[in-house]
Amino acid sequence: MFESKKSSNVKYWIIFVATAVVVFVLGLLAASITQRKAEKEYVYKPIVQINDNESRNEIWGENFPREFQTWLETLDTTFHTKYNGNGFKDALEEDPRLVILWAGYLFSRDYNKPRGHAWAIDDVRKTLRTGAPMSDTAGPQPTTCWTCKSTDVVRVMNEQGVENYYKGKWARLGAEIVNPIGCLNCHDAKTMNLTIKSPALIEAYQAMGKDIKKATLQDMRSLVCAQCHVEYYFDKKRVEGASFVKFPWDKGLSVEKIEEYYDSYEFADWTHAISKAPMLKAQHPDYELYMMGIHGQRNVACADCHMPYISEGGQKFSSHQTVSPLKYIDKTCQVCHRESEQTLVKNVYDRFDKVVEVRDKLEVLLVRAHFEAKKAWDLGANEGEMKDILQGIRKSQWRWDFVAASHGGAFHAPIEGLRILSNGIDIITDTRIKLARILAKYGYNQEVPYPDITKKENAQKLIGLDMPKFRTEKNEFIEKIIPQWMKLAEERQSKWKVIRY
Amino acid sequence: MFESKKSSNVKYWIIFVATAVVVFVLGLLAASITQRKAEKEYVYKPIVQINDNESRNEIWGENFPREFQTWLETLDTTFHTKYNGNGFKDALEEDPRLVILWAGYLFSRDYNKPRGHAWAIDDVRKTLRTGAPMSDTAGPQPTTCWTCKSTDVVRVMNEQGVENYYKGKWARLGAEIVNPIGCLNCHDAKTMNLTIKSPALIEAYQAMGKDIKKATLQDMRSLVCAQCHVEYYFDKKRVEGASFVKFPWDKGLSVEKIEEYYDSYEFADWTHAISKAPMLKAQHPDYELYMMGIHGQRNVACADCHMPYISEGGQKFSSHQTVSPLKYIDKTCQVCHRESEQTLVKNVYDRFDKVVEVRDKLEVLLVRAHFEAKKAWDLGANEGEMKDILQGIRKSQWRWDFVAASHGGAFHAPIEGLRILSNGIDIITDTRIKLARILAKYGYNQEVPYPDITKKENAQKLIGLDMPKFRTEKNEFIEKIIPQWMKLAEERQSKWKVIRY
Repeated sequence: MFESKKSSNVKYWIIFVATAVVVFVLGLLAASITQRKAEKEYVYKPIVQINDNESRNEIWGENFPREFQTWLETLDTTFHTKYNGNGFKDALEEDPRLVILWAGYLFSRDYNKPRGHAWAIDDVRKTLRTGAPMSDTAGPQPTTCWTCKSTDVVRVMNEQGVENYYKGKWARLGAEIVNPIGCLNCHDAKTMNLTIKSPALIEAYQAMGKDIKKATLQDMRSLVCAQCHVEYYFDKKRVEGASFVKFPWDKGLSVEKIEEYYDSYEFADWTHAISKAPMLKAQHPDYELYMMGIHGQRNVACADCHMPYISEGGQKFSSHQTVSPLKYIDKTCQVCHRESEQTLVKNVYDRFDKVVEVRDKLEVLLVRAHFEAKKAWDLGANEGEMKDILQGIRKSQWRWDFVAASHGGAFHAPIEGLRILSNGIDIITDTRIKLARILAKYGYNQEVPYPDITKKENAQKLIGLDMPKFRTEKNEFIEKIIPQWMKLAEERQSKWKVIRY
Repeated sequence: MFESKKSSNVKYWIIFVATAVVVFVLGLLAASITQRKAEKEYVYKPIVQINDNESRNEIWGENFPREFQTWLETLDTTFHTKYNGNGFKDALEEDPRLVILWAGYLFSRDYNKPRGHAWAIDDVRKTLRTGAPMSDTAGPQPTTCWTCKSTDVVRVMNEQGVENYYKGKWARLGAEIVNPIGCLNCHDAKTMNLTIKSPALIEAYQAMGKDIKKATLQDMRSLVCAQCHVEYYFDKKRVEGASFVKFPWDKGLSVEKIEEYYDSYEFADWTHAISKAPMLKAQHPDYELYMMGIHGQRNVACADCHMPYISEGGQKFSSHQTVSPLKYIDKTCQVCHRESEQTLVKNVYDRFDKVVEVRDKLEVLLVRAHFEAKKAWDLGANEGEMKDILQGIRKSQWRWDFVAASHGGAFHAPIEGLRILSNGIDIITDTRIKLARILAKYGYNQEVPYPDITKKENAQKLIGLDMPKFRTEKNEFIEKIIPQWMKLAEERQSKWKVIRY
């Protein structure tokens, strides 16, 4: 029954070693199963050498095929949300009131919902707002209108200097600026780190007494977007003949502080063609409104929602499609919010619906105010009587535009957006009551008829725009000038050396 | 060197058993450490037998000392937030515009910020809104004004029947209704389950085609609050001489749907003393607005934030202090939100600040509209001319009041609140422009002076209130009548049997 002591010891050793081996193998298995492949270290193997002026996105794309491929997807215009998306939509057709609100300004001719980054050059060439310049010195726009459209802007600023870049007409750089918004706008060519290339943003930080170089990595994931997705204007006083992009942030980023800045030297983008009010045109204060909403306050970066992480072939990378987060709710909202897609979409649209409801009401009031002011002028009102009224129209429409022009603002900061719109309605209330009194004084004590602007075409005719003429001119420009620009650009780019490893 | 086989086996056995013992003891230790004491089963040992008409909170408190003790803490008025809290504040003094907005209605005499549940009886007796009834049949208020103030309401409804409860004047039940809002209002005396005791809420559900008995446990944690924290009115048409509490939810819970309900039979709470507009007074649509905000949409119940769980002596129970969640951020907000107290308080106040900013603007416009309407009447405007204007004032002020009167509404649903206020401003814009035209027609083409209402006293004098008289009468009532009520109530209650186990 009892074995010898020695054979017994050998048996224990065999069991011991066998167990150790089994446990070791199990360990390997477990490690293999639990390994987070997506987070394995990415070994960067550059294929081409990228220089500081490389504006061609496809060259960068050779080193970063996944980022480039998702950037290319900004060409896809099939994704639409209820209010926007990546589609190409005529905003004036959708809402002809805009034609009236921008009467006397080029926006009344043509204004489209934004498409993806890769369309930027195509869109800025084709919009009626850039006109049909048949020579390098023809207007209507300055070179500044290229600033947010292309990687070539970084290159040209490097080559010609910032001041020279801002000089002359838009057409002057038509053959230079051909690559749409891309890699060079946000990345350092050597380190690939996020970098601010826009002098305007660097200066805006300086004006606020801050150094943008001290921004955190997480802040940079929004600040690179803030190079363009902000309120800005053309500063023509800095250098004779140059139109510098300037962010009006000196006093702060709120709608009131920016207004205070503009008011401080009576800046106006244009004089309204109907009411004669000195108007401000909000660009797209996306960053400003985002900062005032809960996501901005929680330091959720633009990239967290608009450039979500994707796993492919064991590699984790940030999508460069920069589209509505609603396209990839599983990769965007649901990273933090444990709600169904349906619920989250509803939450987003609820916010939009409420802001849009109020925005539309203010639009109607502004349309009325412009025509009431015109009636007052027509009846003989004088400048002294009209001064406060024109200021009221300016202030109210500025508030409307700040919210209306901000991409996604109704979601980014619905509470601030509604506060701003409410103030806009409050101001126009006061203005229209003063108008009613002036009209009564000049013998017109009844409602000024609301114009027939159910269609864009009616509205544009009403403000005297010769749209067929603009379109004919534009088509000629597209047919004759753009091919010339493209040919020159191709010749230039073909001479750029590319060093492949 | 080698021991005998037998002694070696004995040694293994000793090691084996010793190890087993050590592991067992370690297990006991671990269990003791990790045991979640707070969640151990609560063994309910009743001390008194509670019957279905037991309105005395202190009797229930014998069985539930912790819940009772926290309920008693609603007497503590030392906690204040920036906008409210548990303190006793004179809202008319804080904002004298309210006196004008409620001119002709009892709210213009006296309106205080809410105190805790345990103060309810004291507050309703002392407010000038209940007047100074020196007999059981004296006015101004019906018995209905007790409805949300006391557990005795449940008892009296059980004893006299709901219809009879609603009959007669407020003073009729002065000696019956003495125990403030408490246990019997929300709990079943036998099972302690949450139960709806308010006939108005049960009927409101029926009117919407729903059965409140099918509400989930989580829904009940809000619905018991919705017995009172809602918009309601007194339905005097149902039974002759009775004022039934009725929730105007038949068409829906939104501000527009409730208005549609009221408009459908031209209901008005009162006629405005200055403008003559047929007004609606919003009560406190807390539940309605909460349901339209993100917490309501996420099914976070009232109790989750206002009655947080507390651990004491190894027992977990729900606090019955029902105070602002800002008093216990660690037990309320921070259960879900991983932010610092400071950040969370800022987020709450940011919402309030923005809603209050717009609310105040609308108040000013409404004050102006009332006085402009008065001016129009004074100048000879006729009813036909004024009809639309009075409707505009009604609709605009209804929107203002819906947001202003809702406890915590600016936090519960800031987006919906701002949407409503914006609509209020939009409506009053239109109304005031029509007013300006009428005034001009009657020869008054200038601004109607804004009244001096910097102080409550000025405003009350302006609308012709004899405040010293009201206060003298009230003091007499408090000195003479209330002690009689108390004495009768004590005699009655002393006869109620209490069975102790």
